[in-house]
Amino acid sequence: MTGQWGGKAQDRLDHLTKPLGSLGKIESIARRLVCIRQSMDIAVRRKVIFTFAADHGIAEEGVSLYPRSVTGQMVLNFLAGGAAVNVLARLAGADVRVIDAGIIEPIPDERRLILKRIGPGTRNFLVEDAMTRTDAQKCLDWGADVFLEEFRQIPFDLAGVGEMGIGNSTSAAAVFCACLGCSPEKIVGRGTGLDDTGLEKKRQTIARALTTRNPDSTDPLDVLSKLGGFEIGEMAGCFLAGASKRVPMLVDGFISTAAALLASRLCPPAGDYLFFSHCSAEGPPRENSKIRPGGHALVLNHLKANPILDLDMRLGEGTGAALAMHVLEAAAAIFGQMATFESAGVDEKLDPSACER
Amino acid sequence: MTGQWGGKAQDRLDHLTKPLGSLGKIESIARRLVCIRQSMDIAVRRKVIFTFAADHGIAEEGVSLYPRSVTGQMVLNFLAGGAAVNVLARLAGADVRVIDAGIIEPIPDERRLILKRIGPGTRNFLVEDAMTRTDAQKCLDWGADVFLEEFRQIPFDLAGVGEMGIGNSTSAAAVFCACLGCSPEKIVGRGTGLDDTGLEKKRQTIARALTTRNPDSTDPLDVLSKLGGFEIGEMAGCFLAGASKRVPMLVDGFISTAAALLASRLCPPAGDYLFFSHCSAEGPPRENSKIRPGGHALVLNHLKANPILDLDMRLGEGTGAALAMHVLEAAAAIFGQMATFESAGVDEKLDPSACER
Repeated sequence: MTGQWGGKAQDRLDHLTKPLGSLGKIESIARRLVCIRQSMDIAVRRKVIFTFAADHGIAEEGVSLYPRSVTGQMVLNFLAGGAAVNVLARLAGADVRVIDAGIIEPIPDERRLILKRIGPGTRNFLVEDAMTRTDAQKCLDWGADVFLEEFRQIPFDLAGVGEMGIGNSTSAAAVFCACLGCSPEKIVGRGTGLDDTGLEKKRQTIARALTTRNPDSTDPLDVLSKLGGFEIGEMAGCFLAGASKRVPMLVDGFISTAAALLASRLCPPAGDYLFFSHCSAEGPPRENSKIRPGGHALVLNHLKANPILDLDMRLGEGTGAALAMHVLEAAAAIFGQMATFESAGVDEKLDPSACER
Repeated sequence: MTGQWGGKAQDRLDHLTKPLGSLGKIESIARRLVCIRQSMDIAVRRKVIFTFAADHGIAEEGVSLYPRSVTGQMVLNFLAGGAAVNVLARLAGADVRVIDAGIIEPIPDERRLILKRIGPGTRNFLVEDAMTRTDAQKCLDWGADVFLEEFRQIPFDLAGVGEMGIGNSTSAAAVFCACLGCSPEKIVGRGTGLDDTGLEKKRQTIARALTTRNPDSTDPLDVLSKLGGFEIGEMAGCFLAGASKRVPMLVDGFISTAAALLASRLCPPAGDYLFFSHCSAEGPPRENSKIRPGGHALVLNHLKANPILDLDMRLGEGTGAALAMHVLEAAAAIFGQMATFESAGVDEKLDPSACER
């Protein structure tokens, strides 16, 4: 996706008042933004963070430290503005949109919540498929609708996509194992903070589910329906819609990366529109593991993704996306606002043969 | 410097609506901010970036791709608002203060420039000491004055410290080699973009200077006077003044880290007030080197510093500090604005023995 626009972007970057390439990833991000938007105007005006919430039948297996009631309670916290994603989005100047993709108990009379409920949580995928194939397809459609409806109301230049759902690091890890053919020990992490016993139980749960569900790794809809979650499916649909509108999108963390992987498998060019916010700390404990990189880092390597931040975060919600937005906006500002050598009257670099002495 | 304040900070962090420790470095930064400011109110109101500029006699040796005229021209670019640091500081909501610590040609009639000129550039340290010991001490005093005068006018909660000076990556590398007893091949990088021949020449220049100047590694003033720069010395003084006022400070990149090292050697507790913005790309080319980490990363390891960002940047000016300010401000906002489990009515984690099933 570089071509003409990549060349034009590089030419401008090379005339700005700084040594060639000295802003590193800031420059490569600016170049990608030009290619995505097919414009030399990459200024970031409006920013939106979509936080998709849903419940997971697999939570019945005791794979999380928190009760499932927390998913709905955190949705209320998002709507009240008290969660981490709200704080970081305010700092980034981004609007937060909260989507009920299928929490257990619907929240009544809450107009600010976007209702895209596929059902009251997925089924327990250790026992049966998480959802039907029809519902998996519906996730993609409804997730795309979330993006498109918001975009139609007031367009935006940058989106972040994150989630909330007790049990969803188990679902995401199962999706990774199924798609990449990895063993759970390379991928599965402590989620909200499992101890060693809990971690081992979570690994075994996923290993058994992979055997009994037997998903077709070449069919993303099969993987989503057997092991996924409603929020994971809707995030995948949201990524596909974003690509269709040429909007650069920030993938938040471990769980949203599962959605990004499914979206990229369904439509490989959609991957060109994704930025990976950070390398999550979710994955096998590094101190006990000879597997480097493990968990999220391993998946990012597979996706040839170059995460922007690495801050040992593992919260989700869109918090990584909100933080990384600042770096994307910085790249756009550098590209649009810096003086050139000519405009600032600064001498360009010497011919090496003409160096003093 | 943890103690009572560290404990109070941790207690608050552990009651916020997120799994314990799930915001990773954001939490450890918040904890450090509480300890530095000895207050639970760590909100970041005013932010300032100090950009110290000076010229270097060593540039006569052809160790930079750019002519020395560029230092003064870039100072004018900073004052006009067109440089990278201006763009990134605007985005961070930070004021930029530009200091002439000793560029060759004074800039006349420029009231916005803070004049702390030690002299018209240092002397060529391959031939003679860069400055007298008296001038080295004056650098520390005047750099501290820059901080204190600004702080007296309008106090600020966060400062970034960066620089500009053609030839100063050579001076900084020499300071590192002298202080850490490293060979130049482990530290020296391409600066503004030297080719292999230029890099080898720069290494040899530093190696020869280390022999002829023979600095006392245990005496930071001796190292500064023999190999340093006026902006490096003034940045060191600025760091010391910041610590005296309990203001958290962001060290920008490779060259400002040389100043941070000198400040920490002069007064070890001052190191507690420093945050390292990013790991610079300056250092031996990684692709050709078996030395990992090299250059800036090696120095950061020595300082036990945990850099906030890693974006392959190597520009200086305060650009890394401006970008990292957002992360520090995010930590302060998380600490001050997030809901607690109690205030938001969110269930806390389960007793592991009470997990479902």
